[in-house]
Amino acid sequence: MSQLTKPFQVGEHGARPRVVIVGAGFGGLHAALALRHLAVDVTVVDRRNHHTFQPLLYQVALAVLSPADIAQPIRTILRNQANTEVLMDEVNGIDLQARRVWLTSGAQLAYDYLVIATGATHSYFGKDEWARYAPGLKGIEDAIEIRRRVLLAFELAERQMQERGWHPPLNFVVIGGGPTGVELAGAVSDITKLYMRHDFRHIDPSKARVLLFDSGPRVLAAYPEDLSAKAERELFHLGVEVHTKSHVTNVGPGWVEVNDQRIDAAVILWAAGVQASPLGKMLGAPTDKRGCVIVDSDLNPPGLPEVFVLGDLAHFEQDGKQVPGVAQPAMQMGDYVGKAIAADLAHQRRPAFRYFDKGDMATIGRMAAVANVQWPFKAHLSGLPAWLTWMVVHIFFLIGFRNRIAVFSQWVWNYFMFTRSARLITGDQNLPGWQDQVNAGPAKEEDVRAAEVR
Amino acid sequence: MSQLTKPFQVGEHGARPRVVIVGAGFGGLHAALALRHLAVDVTVVDRRNHHTFQPLLYQVALAVLSPADIAQPIRTILRNQANTEVLMDEVNGIDLQARRVWLTSGAQLAYDYLVIATGATHSYFGKDEWARYAPGLKGIEDAIEIRRRVLLAFELAERQMQERGWHPPLNFVVIGGGPTGVELAGAVSDITKLYMRHDFRHIDPSKARVLLFDSGPRVLAAYPEDLSAKAERELFHLGVEVHTKSHVTNVGPGWVEVNDQRIDAAVILWAAGVQASPLGKMLGAPTDKRGCVIVDSDLNPPGLPEVFVLGDLAHFEQDGKQVPGVAQPAMQMGDYVGKAIAADLAHQRRPAFRYFDKGDMATIGRMAAVANVQWPFKAHLSGLPAWLTWMVVHIFFLIGFRNRIAVFSQWVWNYFMFTRSARLITGDQNLPGWQDQVNAGPAKEEDVRAAEVR
Repeated sequence: MSQLTKPFQVGEHGARPRVVIVGAGFGGLHAALALRHLAVDVTVVDRRNHHTFQPLLYQVALAVLSPADIAQPIRTILRNQANTEVLMDEVNGIDLQARRVWLTSGAQLAYDYLVIATGATHSYFGKDEWARYAPGLKGIEDAIEIRRRVLLAFELAERQMQERGWHPPLNFVVIGGGPTGVELAGAVSDITKLYMRHDFRHIDPSKARVLLFDSGPRVLAAYPEDLSAKAERELFHLGVEVHTKSHVTNVGPGWVEVNDQRIDAAVILWAAGVQASPLGKMLGAPTDKRGCVIVDSDLNPPGLPEVFVLGDLAHFEQDGKQVPGVAQPAMQMGDYVGKAIAADLAHQRRPAFRYFDKGDMATIGRMAAVANVQWPFKAHLSGLPAWLTWMVVHIFFLIGFRNRIAVFSQWVWNYFMFTRSARLITGDQNLPGWQDQVNAGPAKEEDVRAAEVR
Repeated sequence: MSQLTKPFQVGEHGARPRVVIVGAGFGGLHAALALRHLAVDVTVVDRRNHHTFQPLLYQVALAVLSPADIAQPIRTILRNQANTEVLMDEVNGIDLQARRVWLTSGAQLAYDYLVIATGATHSYFGKDEWARYAPGLKGIEDAIEIRRRVLLAFELAERQMQERGWHPPLNFVVIGGGPTGVELAGAVSDITKLYMRHDFRHIDPSKARVLLFDSGPRVLAAYPEDLSAKAERELFHLGVEVHTKSHVTNVGPGWVEVNDQRIDAAVILWAAGVQASPLGKMLGAPTDKRGCVIVDSDLNPPGLPEVFVLGDLAHFEQDGKQVPGVAQPAMQMGDYVGKAIAADLAHQRRPAFRYFDKGDMATIGRMAAVANVQWPFKAHLSGLPAWLTWMVVHIFFLIGFRNRIAVFSQWVWNYFMFTRSARLITGDQNLPGWQDQVNAGPAKEEDVRAAEVR
C-alpha cells in the first residue's frame, strides 16, 4: 500500500520538475519513455552510451548475433523525445537532503525526482578473484570476452593437436543453473555440435563436453518442477551434462573444484550469483542481503517519495513473493514511474504498483525452450512450441531497435544455415597467460624441443 | 621476365607439395582459393581468426557497419576446401635452407612452397610515440578504437557543455590525403553533419570541424590531377578543410603541430605512412625503403623460386611503375600463385605475372566518390556516378561474405534513414587520461568547484 496519505507535491519553485534517471536498462529506459508527454525535464544518466537488450546477450557471447544487433545508443532511442536529454556519466554519490547526485566528472545534478535503475551484477560470493577465470555475462563487453574465450579455446586445441598430436580436454563449464546458465549451456552445446563441425581438420568440436553445475536440487529453481525436469531432459538431449547439488568450492586457472573434486576446464562461465548495484546502499535505506532496496507499493524506499528504485535493484514483494529480477517487471516498473509522476502533477493520489506476470521463459539451444506462460492463458510449454513462443516474444520486444527485421533475418539465416558471421575474435588474440600455461599440459618434453609439424 | 630457365620442380620426396601461406588478407586468401583443385596440401597461417574486407574498414570506424559485416572467420571461408587447413598462429622466423617457418607457439611448419602475404601497417616515420595519440586504420581493432574515440569526443563535449557551458573545439584531424585519409575525412564529416544532428541537446555536432592535412601538393597523389581537384572540391562541399603542403611536425595529447603551428584536436586519425610487415626483412632479400620485398615477374625474391611474396608486402614493377598496394593487385597476385604452382606440377614454364589494372576509386562521404576507371572502358568519374560505381563494385567483391545481402540492406538503411545501429562504444568507456586532462580546458576555477548543472 502507498505510504502517502495525501498527493505528493514537488516544485515549490514553480519550475518544471526535474527527473534524473540513473541507468538506461529496461527499467530506466521505460521510465524515460513513460515521461515523454509530461511537463517534466528528464535527464538519463548512464555510464555506457548504449542500452542492451539483455535477454539476447548470450547470443552475442556465442557468436550468433553481433553486439550492434542487440545494443542501441541511448541517444538514438530518445533522440525525438524533446523533454529528455542523455548524459554519459556515472553517479557516485547522492545527497538526499539537497536533492542532488554527484557525477564522476565532478559535477552535480539537481533533481526533484530521482529514479534509480542501475540493476545488478554477478556476485562471486566474496571470491572476487574467481572473476578472472570465470567471467559472467552482464554487458556487451562481457559477451565479447566470453566469445573470445570460447572461440580461442577451439583455435588453441586445433593448434595443439596439429603441433603435438594432443590437446587437453575441451571442457566448457557453466556454473549456475538459472535461466542464464541454462541458455549459455545450450548455446555452447550448439556451437560445438552444429556450427563448428566443418571448420577444423584436427579436432572434432562435437567431442567437446559441456558441463552445467548448480548447487540446488534442480535447474531453473524459480520455475515449476515439471518445467525444470523438462529443461534437464532437453539439456540432456543436447549433450549437456547437468550436475545438480554440485557446489563449486574453488575456481582457478583452467579448472574448477566441484564438491572438492577438480575438473579441467577450457572455458568457465559464471552464471551463479547476483548482487545489487552499489547505488542502492548509498540511499541509506533498508536493503535485502543482496543489496536490493526494499520498496513499497509506490516503488519508493521508506520516507523518500521523490525517489523511485526499479528493476533488478528493487526488492518488491507482491502476494508474499518477491518479484523476480528479469525484464518484464523492470519495464512495468518504468511505466509505473510515469503514472506516479503524472498523478503527482495532477495533485491526485498515486496508484499502487502491481506486477502483471505474463510468465517466464528460457531457451535451451537451437529449437527448444521452456515457458511458464501466465498470460493470455496459463500453460507450461516446452520443446519447439516454447521455443517458437520465445522467438516471437523476443523479436516483438526488441523495441527501439529499428533493425529488428535485419536482426530477425540474420537470426533465421544463422539458425538454418549453421553459419556464424559474428564469429570474430577481437581484442587480445592470446589466451590469458595462465591458460596457455595450463593447456601446455603434461607433455613437458614436447614443449622443450620445437615439435615438428606433419 | 621469369628468372627460371627451366620448369621449377618440387617434392623429390614424392609426397604432395606442402604450401604454407602466411597471412589471409586479399593476397593470401586468393592464393589459398586458387590452390583449391591442385594436388597440394595448403596451410594458411594467420594471427587473426578472421579475414577483413579492408576497403570498408573505415565504415566500421565511423559506425556505419559492424565488425562482423566486413570480417569473416578464415575457417568459415575455407571450410569446404578439403586440401586446406587454417592455423591461428604467428610466424616469427623463416629457415630458407631447411624450408621451414617458426611459429610463436614454438612449433615449426615445413613447406615446399612458401607464400608470404602479411601486408603492411602504418608508419609514423620513426615517431612511434605518436601512435598513442593518432591511431591508424589497418584492422578491426583499429576501427573499433577509432569508433570509440570519435563517439566519446561527442559525449565528452556534450557533458562539458552541460556541466560547464563550455567545451574545447571539436576538431577532427585526419593526417594523410591518400584514399584512406580522404575516405575517413568524408565519413567523419558525414557523422557530424548528418547522423548525429538530433542526438544532442547542448552541442551542435554539425559545428565540428574536420581538417585534412597532406604534405604533398594535392590529395590522392596517385590519381590523375583532374580527379584530385574534383576530390578536393567534393571534400570542400562536405565542409572538410583540406590543407595540402602541410607537414605534420609533431603530435601530442589533444593537438597536432602542422608546419610548426599547434592545432587543438579532439580526435587525430593517422592515414599517412605505410611500412611493410617485418616478415619481408626476414627473407634476407632486397627490399625497398618501406621494407617491401622486390620481386620478379614470378613474384619471387631473387633466387627463391619456391617463395612467393604478394600484395602490399611485394614491390613489383610493371612498365616502369610500381603496382600500388591495394586490393586488386593483391587478389591477382594470389590467383597467380595458383597458376604458377599448377605450371610447376605440370612441368611447364610458369607464365609471367601481369597486373591487369581495372582502375582505382575512393569515396568522399555519403554520395560522392572519384574513380579512375581503366576497364571495361577508360573514364574519370566523380560525384554520384563514381559513388554508384564504387557501391556496385564493393558489394560485388564482398566475396566469401554470405551475408552480402544483409550488409547491403543495412547499408542502404543507414544511408537513407541516417541511423547508426553500429554506434556503440565498447571497451574502455573513458577517454585516454591525457584527453580528459587536455579537454578540461582553460577554465581552472570551474574544475575546482563542482559546477552545478542547470
